[in-house]
Amino acid sequence: MVRVVILGGSDAGISAALRIREVAATADVTVVLADAFPNYSICGLPFYLSGEVPDWQQLAHRTADDIERAGVRLQLNTVAQAINPTDQTVALKAHDQVRSELRYDRLVIATGAVSIRPRIAGLDLPGVFPLRRMEDSFAVDRYIHTHAPQTAVIIGGGYIGVEMADALTRRGLAVTVVEHGDSVLKTVDPSLGQLVRAELERSGVSVVTGVASTAIEPAGQQLTVLGTPGFARTADLVLVAVGVRPRVDLAVTAGVALGATGAIRVTRAMETSIPNIFAAGDCVETWHRLLNQPTYLPLGSTAHKQGRVAGANAAGGSQHYAGSLGTQVVKVFELAIARTGLRDSEARAAGFDPVTVELAPWDHKVYYPGAQVLHIRVTGDQHTGLLLGAQMVGPHTAEVAKRIDIFATALFHRMTVDALNDLDLSYTPPLSSPWDPVQLSAQAWTQVVEHGRGRNPA
Amino acid sequence: MVRVVILGGSDAGISAALRIREVAATADVTVVLADAFPNYSICGLPFYLSGEVPDWQQLAHRTADDIERAGVRLQLNTVAQAINPTDQTVALKAHDQVRSELRYDRLVIATGAVSIRPRIAGLDLPGVFPLRRMEDSFAVDRYIHTHAPQTAVIIGGGYIGVEMADALTRRGLAVTVVEHGDSVLKTVDPSLGQLVRAELERSGVSVVTGVASTAIEPAGQQLTVLGTPGFARTADLVLVAVGVRPRVDLAVTAGVALGATGAIRVTRAMETSIPNIFAAGDCVETWHRLLNQPTYLPLGSTAHKQGRVAGANAAGGSQHYAGSLGTQVVKVFELAIARTGLRDSEARAAGFDPVTVELAPWDHKVYYPGAQVLHIRVTGDQHTGLLLGAQMVGPHTAEVAKRIDIFATALFHRMTVDALNDLDLSYTPPLSSPWDPVQLSAQAWTQVVEHGRGRNPA
Repeated sequence: MVRVVILGGSDAGISAALRIREVAATADVTVVLADAFPNYSICGLPFYLSGEVPDWQQLAHRTADDIERAGVRLQLNTVAQAINPTDQTVALKAHDQVRSELRYDRLVIATGAVSIRPRIAGLDLPGVFPLRRMEDSFAVDRYIHTHAPQTAVIIGGGYIGVEMADALTRRGLAVTVVEHGDSVLKTVDPSLGQLVRAELERSGVSVVTGVASTAIEPAGQQLTVLGTPGFARTADLVLVAVGVRPRVDLAVTAGVALGATGAIRVTRAMETSIPNIFAAGDCVETWHRLLNQPTYLPLGSTAHKQGRVAGANAAGGSQHYAGSLGTQVVKVFELAIARTGLRDSEARAAGFDPVTVELAPWDHKVYYPGAQVLHIRVTGDQHTGLLLGAQMVGPHTAEVAKRIDIFATALFHRMTVDALNDLDLSYTPPLSSPWDPVQLSAQAWTQVVEHGRGRNPA
Repeated sequence: MVRVVILGGSDAGISAALRIREVAATADVTVVLADAFPNYSICGLPFYLSGEVPDWQQLAHRTADDIERAGVRLQLNTVAQAINPTDQTVALKAHDQVRSELRYDRLVIATGAVSIRPRIAGLDLPGVFPLRRMEDSFAVDRYIHTHAPQTAVIIGGGYIGVEMADALTRRGLAVTVVEHGDSVLKTVDPSLGQLVRAELERSGVSVVTGVASTAIEPAGQQLTVLGTPGFARTADLVLVAVGVRPRVDLAVTAGVALGATGAIRVTRAMETSIPNIFAAGDCVETWHRLLNQPTYLPLGSTAHKQGRVAGANAAGGSQHYAGSLGTQVVKVFELAIARTGLRDSEARAAGFDPVTVELAPWDHKVYYPGAQVLHIRVTGDQHTGLLLGAQMVGPHTAEVAKRIDIFATALFHRMTVDALNDLDLSYTPPLSSPWDPVQLSAQAWTQVVEHGRGRNPA
């Protein structure tokens, strides 16, 4: 009977635990959690704070009962203080100060990520919040209830920043997003970032780009966010959402090697540098299927996949993580913004010779009511013709997310852009065209490359 | 300068014509049409008759001007009467009786399909209509305007039958669908056909299955449809939609070989049995990528692809049609019904050892408002693990169509069911789950096969 200890009870940890029990019914599996919230969907926190999800308990992918019924032991409110790889034990300390030790045959580190604390003065002032953990969202929710803020500044215009701009607007606050870069949602190209900005502004959000926030200062009952060049905005609430970094302190202390990204280095079998210690999720490096190298890409969907592989292997299997394409989608008000694979700049940095072409086709035959415009950017290598990536923005009702998944599946199989036209995709006038917009954008790309009409047309 | 004559100006014919001009700018291209409606989307006829598309002219994929601006000559209202392969000419007769002859270097036959006339007495009575050509829909529309029918019987519960049930209901008629088989939309399994039937009935359509229509008789100002066993229904309008057959008379007279299906036999380069004569679209056999043999699968999306290949090759290229997976989707009231690949019975007939598993997952995280149930059936080979096909029914707003396309893209690349879990698909709680429903249904299939819990659970 193999004894497996899993440190962390979010997506990767619980996926690993359940997979172990699926493939090894006799395995003894313990998940150690620092809090009391196993398997919560932290991707859902913005929707809890927006009021769209009335009860935070709904955010559980599964209940603790579900998990325990699958034969997984949960040790809640317990912090792992040290890993001893020599005698294969973990030292634990519960919130009630009781110390204990767990012996393992295999260990899975799934300690996730923590919010980056930027170099900004005033981060600890009342009314200033990060948003990563369940407790963060409870704190924001309590503050909204007790202080009834009317205005908010969100520092950071990435995924969490724009989702929270949507959420707090729905909650009735007047929101300003302050972004250091030239456009919001820098994970997509600026022409698409402009569409996101327009959607935010249409919905009443004030968007400020090109401003580095430098300090948060008290201003009576309020807070003033200061930035350069010459920015000051006073509000009742400040959210700091400038990204995350892997939580690796425990692993480092145990001698587990990190990669160049600062996350835990793992093989594609999710093994760390120390025998019998696996790792998965937001604390590890993620193998990129196109770049053929590790990256740091902390995503819930990735954490589930890596956890499943780590679990299978901790139970004695020999699975391999197939690699990420960085496929992502976010909903902001009425828009869905999605991407997969590489953007032009990323592809060029990786040694490809990319061309990116943008097309704005209808989502379905325009004669059928309700046709909506999609904005699709296709990146391919002009020498090999290989598809390298795609980005798409459109109404969230226009099958944007699953259209990016057609590109993602094509990328998984290293198709050329032109070969997308060979795919037998579904068609009916209310839902597509005889050539799906995915294929129309592939045809536009090919025309640009064949006719040598130059790179990166607007 | 190559002279290409194309017989037929619907999807395949116009796709071929435009592709020729794309790859051979000097080519002399003439499209001969029996009617005055080049490049009309006949898939859109139900939406014209429903009133959702107010003007039939909107149904044109492109206008005649668009096509002619691309350098394609259109010869409207002209019937090709004979092909002479020896001197490479086509004898034409215009509606005004003027006869002429066109010489070709390459000919593309794209004569499409015609409605099957079932062995039912009374098909030529006033008020009885097929629905295939533009003229058919004009005739139905005129009849509705002049006779103000209140009730309709539709003979045939296939794609066109259920679409027209939707369309005529929207137009205010009380509709009965009479289907010979045990369930409507027999292109999907009965458990999904039941959902379609329920949706039709919920929307006020009367559905009668297991009845073979035998005759249509006048009944005063109305028509009575008789069938066995013991069926009679009187209505003001009767639509006959029992399928189509390839229009091959012209090809046969010229000596072009047909395949076993009765459609024109073509290579994957879309060549017929006669040199310099290509064919594409609903008049030809379609290469099935999984069956590795020709089938008859008349679909608009297929016609476009085959036309593009035929055009490229008529212009001197050497393209190959990649093959069909039979991917299809239809919208009926609020449902989308989609499929790709093989069903259990088709797979077994083809020598596979299939298992089919049905799952009913939410389309997105259930905690986010608006989650809807999808019904997904996955068919795979239990020995090789290969994915063979998928069927899906759900609200048309739940990305059913593009989710079937993820399966279609996976099938294109001959993935195993289990490998679907390796796909990096997009996730955000309002639009999916960390494992997309596509992957959840793959996991359900694998569990059934691994645990040997038997075949085809309900």
